[in-house]
Amino acid sequence: MIKRRINEEQLISRYFCKSKPHPNINLGIGDDAAIINVSDECLAVATDTLVEGVHFEAGFDANCIGHKALAVNLSDLAAMGAAPRWALLALTVPNADTDWLEAFSDGFFRLANQYRVSLIGGDTTRGAITITVQLIGTLGERHILRRDSAQAGEGIYVTGRLADTALAALFAEPLKSYSRSFEQCTERMRRPVARVAEGLLLARYASAAIDISDGIFKDLSRILSASNVGAEIEITSIPTIPEIGQCCPSLQSRLEALSYGEDYELLFTLDDKHFSEVLSAFDDLGTNINRIGTIGEEPGLKCLWRSQEIELPQPSGYEHFG
Amino acid sequence: MIKRRINEEQLISRYFCKSKPHPNINLGIGDDAAIINVSDECLAVATDTLVEGVHFEAGFDANCIGHKALAVNLSDLAAMGAAPRWALLALTVPNADTDWLEAFSDGFFRLANQYRVSLIGGDTTRGAITITVQLIGTLGERHILRRDSAQAGEGIYVTGRLADTALAALFAEPLKSYSRSFEQCTERMRRPVARVAEGLLLARYASAAIDISDGIFKDLSRILSASNVGAEIEITSIPTIPEIGQCCPSLQSRLEALSYGEDYELLFTLDDKHFSEVLSAFDDLGTNINRIGTIGEEPGLKCLWRSQEIELPQPSGYEHFG
Repeated sequence: MIKRRINEEQLISRYFCKSKPHPNINLGIGDDAAIINVSDECLAVATDTLVEGVHFEAGFDANCIGHKALAVNLSDLAAMGAAPRWALLALTVPNADTDWLEAFSDGFFRLANQYRVSLIGGDTTRGAITITVQLIGTLGERHILRRDSAQAGEGIYVTGRLADTALAALFAEPLKSYSRSFEQCTERMRRPVARVAEGLLLARYASAAIDISDGIFKDLSRILSASNVGAEIEITSIPTIPEIGQCCPSLQSRLEALSYGEDYELLFTLDDKHFSEVLSAFDDLGTNINRIGTIGEEPGLKCLWRSQEIELPQPSGYEHFG
Repeated sequence: MIKRRINEEQLISRYFCKSKPHPNINLGIGDDAAIINVSDECLAVATDTLVEGVHFEAGFDANCIGHKALAVNLSDLAAMGAAPRWALLALTVPNADTDWLEAFSDGFFRLANQYRVSLIGGDTTRGAITITVQLIGTLGERHILRRDSAQAGEGIYVTGRLADTALAALFAEPLKSYSRSFEQCTERMRRPVARVAEGLLLARYASAAIDISDGIFKDLSRILSASNVGAEIEITSIPTIPEIGQCCPSLQSRLEALSYGEDYELLFTLDDKHFSEVLSAFDDLGTNINRIGTIGEEPGLKCLWRSQEIELPQPSGYEHFG
């Protein structure tokens, strides 16, 4: 029997959007994190799971797994403009391998301590390696960086640079010729950096934001759908390592690298009148931002390559969820 | 190479108790749920994972799995005296089997709606079936039902009755002769009931509480250790189905049934002067409570069988975690 094929968004909307709206739920399923109102505070709550064999290979450095399990959740909260505070860890491992646990917890707590995130609870169970972190953060007086608030006419910006992980994962051979970029890309694949301070800053200026975990085209499209707008972007404006042309000589390979995901940069839309102020604030953080396109009224994503419109490769019929 | 053996409590204290105390953390790792202070509200936060092959067999009714994944977390919050509010679901499944998802989500939402719990977020990933639910509840003005607040002289009470799941799982053959008890025990194994209303009520009276998920002896011992007290209990006072003597004719089998866990009843300690008031309130809920022993000053758990002291079987050297 052939099972009907379903992607993650269909799966969630069909089976898991069954709770009634409630005044304490500021924002439910469908953004990077949920927002709940508690007393006079807004909390952002996110959860992400890493599965061995899906999100990392068997034998992958446990220290990096501990880091990454928290980093992906930090990135979700950053994309809401929330300050991360409290984490819970649900850890499933086949046995209590003390070396693995030592390395995993070191990776986790090194990152947690950097952002003053406290691990307040969790659960340990036996099974195939699966790590779920739940992260709770506070919004304070900050604006919530929703996906559904992009406005026609706004600029589309990204933090940092994209495709580093893709290049390390898919194009390691040509990348090896450029030792500095090779090291940087490999390190970002192993220990992704979440844009926590950048998210807090953007909560003062940006209209909409998302973290780029599933590739810029897919994640930008989520903003466009949620906001009921369209966009035009220029591929050559998307910031990458300088040697991307050598690593990905064809347009197709370049698009493949940009579609890979695991960037954990923030994509945001901004009224351009705030640009110089935002640029100056990002300079203080030491983080680059780049304008890659413009939000328009007409739905759909239009991609330009050196000002010529191109077609994005369609995702294959079967989209893996998660 | 023989790996060093480690139980769950050792694992957690060795590798995961590394966060610094913080004034917003009212109660961290080590109780049924963590308690955080947000504005002028206290939140209780718990997470529990179910793994196929560990917590349920392959092919187990997906509707029951959806129910149970939430119920075990409801039970944790009940044991803190918290009202459950918001849930996140991290669901790992090998493929998007629509029948399974339909049944799972029905089981989950039927229970969620019963307690007005809203599913506000989550993550779906591909892998061996693993379900992690995170549940957030509010304490309001209620007292927190900690593990570490039992006082010498207090009575030890349990809600409902114990060993139903154990009898259905371990002693199904003799149990089948008693059709009403067999049905009740099987249904509780399939769809455990969390004592949510009972926990809210106890927050007004009880000193300490825990939910019985790992067997009464182990869970009572956790209260004793945390509170630095001891206890004497009478095994024959522990409420069970009337036919337990027929199903478990030897003392050893009786103790085995009581040690099995998955009861999800509340064990609590109470100044006996509140007893009649508490009993009357429980009558209104339609829930029995039974006094099974007394907290004493001298550390350790003393078990009586018809007033004669007995030795509990020691757990084997290798304690499974989770």
